[in-house]
Formats: sequence, C-alpha cells, structure tokens
Amino acid sequence: MALLPDPEPLFELIEALNTLPGIGKRTARRMAYHLLQYDREGAAKISETINQALNELKHCQMCNSFTTEDICPICASQRRDHSLLCVVETAADLNMIEASHGYHGLYYVLMGKVSPLDGVGAQKLNLERLFHRVLDYPVQEVILATNFTAEGETTAHYLGNVLRDQGIKVSRIARGVPSGSELEYVDAGTIAWALTERRTD
Amino acid sequence: MALLPDPEPLFELIEALNTLPGIGKRTARRMAYHLLQYDREGAAKISETINQALNELKHCQMCNSFTTEDICPICASQRRDHSLLCVVETAADLNMIEASHGYHGLYYVLMGKVSPLDGVGAQKLNLERLFHRVLDYPVQEVILATNFTAEGETTAHYLGNVLRDQGIKVSRIARGVPSGSELEYVDAGTIAWALTERRTD
Ligand SMILES: [Zn+2]
Ligand SMILES: [Zn+2]
Repeated sequence: MALLPDPEPLFELIEALNTLPGIGKRTARRMAYHLLQYDREGAAKISETINQALNELKHCQMCNSFTTEDICPICASQRRDHSLLCVVETAADLNMIEASHGYHGLYYVLMGKVSPLDGVGAQKLNLERLFHRVLDYPVQEVILATNFTAEGETTAHYLGNVLRDQGIKVSRIARGVPSGSELEYVDAGTIAWALTERRTD
Repeated sequence: MALLPDPEPLFELIEALNTLPGIGKRTARRMAYHLLQYDREGAAKISETINQALNELKHCQMCNSFTTEDICPICASQRRDHSLLCVVETAADLNMIEASHGYHGLYYVLMGKVSPLDGVGAQKLNLERLFHRVLDYPVQEVILATNFTAEGETTAHYLGNVLRDQGIKVSRIARGVPSGSELEYVDAGTIAWALTERRTD
C-alpha cells in the first residue's frame, strides 16, 4: 500500500520511534501524530527527559546500575548485608528482587547477558568489572539470579565457573522461577521463595 | 508492590514515556531501561527528531495537515481536483484515503473531532478555519469523511448543517466503512468504495 510520503521531519520522527522495542511502524506513526497533534508539551517533555537521563545517569561504580551518584543508595547503605552479592541481568530485575522483600544483600547488574547468537560475548558484557568488584570488596557468597532462559543459564554457568575458580562461594537462585520466563514478569512471592531456596552447586 | 525508587532522571523519563498513547507504566520503564542500556544512540535520535518535528512542521494554510511548506504538496498540486474538498479527522485518515487511490480532490484535516464529553467543542477544533478555507477557495462539494464513531458523526452533523446553510453542497462518505470503526484501520478497497458511494443528504 503506497502511503503518501510524510514530510521529512515527520518521517524521521516515525523512524526513530519505530526503533523502540515492541513499537511497529504503524504504532510509531500514530505516536508521532498524537504528539504533534494533541500533546506538543508532552513531546517536548520526552525529548528533554531523554537528554537529561543520557547526561545525568551513570553506572554505580560498585553495582553497575543506573544512578546519579558515584555509588548508588543500595551499595552505600550500611543497613544492607555487604557479604552477599546478587548478580542480575538488568536494573528491572533488581527492582523486582527488591520488591520481593526477600533479600537484603548487595547487587551487581550485568546490563545484559551472554548471548553468543547475538554476538554478545563475555567481553562485551564487561564481566571483568564484576570480577574486579568481587576482588575489591570481597563477599561471602555470590548469588546468580540471571534469568532461566538459554542466555541467562549460559551467563550463570560461565560466571559460576570463573568465580568458583577464584575460591568464591557461588549459588544459583532456585528454579522456583518458571523455566523459560523472565524475572521481571514473575510475582514477588515466587522470587522471594526462589532466593531462599537457592542452591550451591 | 513497593518498587525501589528510580533515580530522578530515570523516573522523569519513565513518566514522560508513560504519557504516550497505549504505553503503560511498566512498558515505559522497559523502554527507558532499553534506551539507556542498549540504545543510547537511538535515544538521542528520538530526542533530536522530536525537537526537529516540533520546530520544522507547521500546518498547511489550506488543508491544515502537517507540512514543512506554507502550502502542502497536495494542495499545491495542479493535478488534483480543486473542486472537491474531503474533510477528515486526522493526517492518518488522509494517508489512508490517499492509499485507496479512489480520490483525487483536496483535503481538510480537522486534527481532532467534536467531542463534547472530552470538552472539545467546535471552538477548540477551530472550525472557523475550515469555513474560511471554503470561502477563500470555493469548492463544488465538501465530502465529510470523519469516522463513523459517535464523535465523528457529531462532527459531520455539525459541519454539514453549517456548510449547507452557506449553500455549499455537502456529502457524507457511504457507510461502507464498518460502523464504530476508525478509517485508519479499514482496508483501502472499502475506503475507495465508500468514497464512490458517498451520498448527499
Ligand atoms: Zn550500586
Ligand atoms: Zn495542504
């Protein structure tokens, strides 16, 4: 179907919105029209907050999650158990574990997972940073809470091997989390249970 | 569920994305994480194209649709039939009618519809501009192609009355378009047929 070409600035906006995860061409066009037609203020706000987030957010030097400080509030807190380190794939996963209220240690956020098919190897994930983190601030146990997907398991397997070789106690959260699913979509109770029932291989 | 508070710039970005149509809080958060974690370049591009669109796009002086010129390519074209004026609610509707290849006249884009429940009256839609358009550049017929929703029908009814009072021939596209649906989601063939079968009340 040959649609009338959009004016250049509109075309480019639609292309840009189309790169968002889960947003097809048609939805992107509707979003663009909506912003320009009904919500120019909202559009300006999105533009502004994106720039602000890109400029002001950095990665916590200890856990790698998003923060405006050098060290995020969790890593800086003396009320957390600094002897436990839970490794998750994303900041969203960290949020879900916090919401389960079943864990009071620290975190390390991988910001991705080892995914050989997508060309994301251990190098690209910068796992060196995690290893340095564990050497600089020793912990009693590293809990691997990557997702129970193929990539998450690969990542956990790889991390487990390297960390154990350095004499560090490593555990994996229990498979209470349904296999093949992503932490972010699991209820908090299941996550709390999986943390408690974690096993050391 | 008490999630860990996001750092301020992340929170504000999520809030802004959450105002997009059809984007809930959870999807907005996933989008924000995705942009910051995997696609900072794409994020910058979205911000930039929004600003560009807000700055460079204006409304065509004749048809009210988005354009970078004073008069858009359709209104400026001598190959179009300037004696026919088709009134649609949105630029997306205009695109759909163009895609049907069943119409070669001009357009007027309301950029909305009369929706008393939402507080959008004839004033807010700035229908004066449409009336001026018809007086400044007389046409033989105005085809009302607003959607067959309650608001679209109200708008068509109101416009029809005012235009007929000024001695202008007014028609409504045929109800080949399924009742209660929006033009943008109807196949091009149905739209072409509805245009051909339009009726004059
Ligand atoms: Zn931290
Ligand atoms: Zn025009």
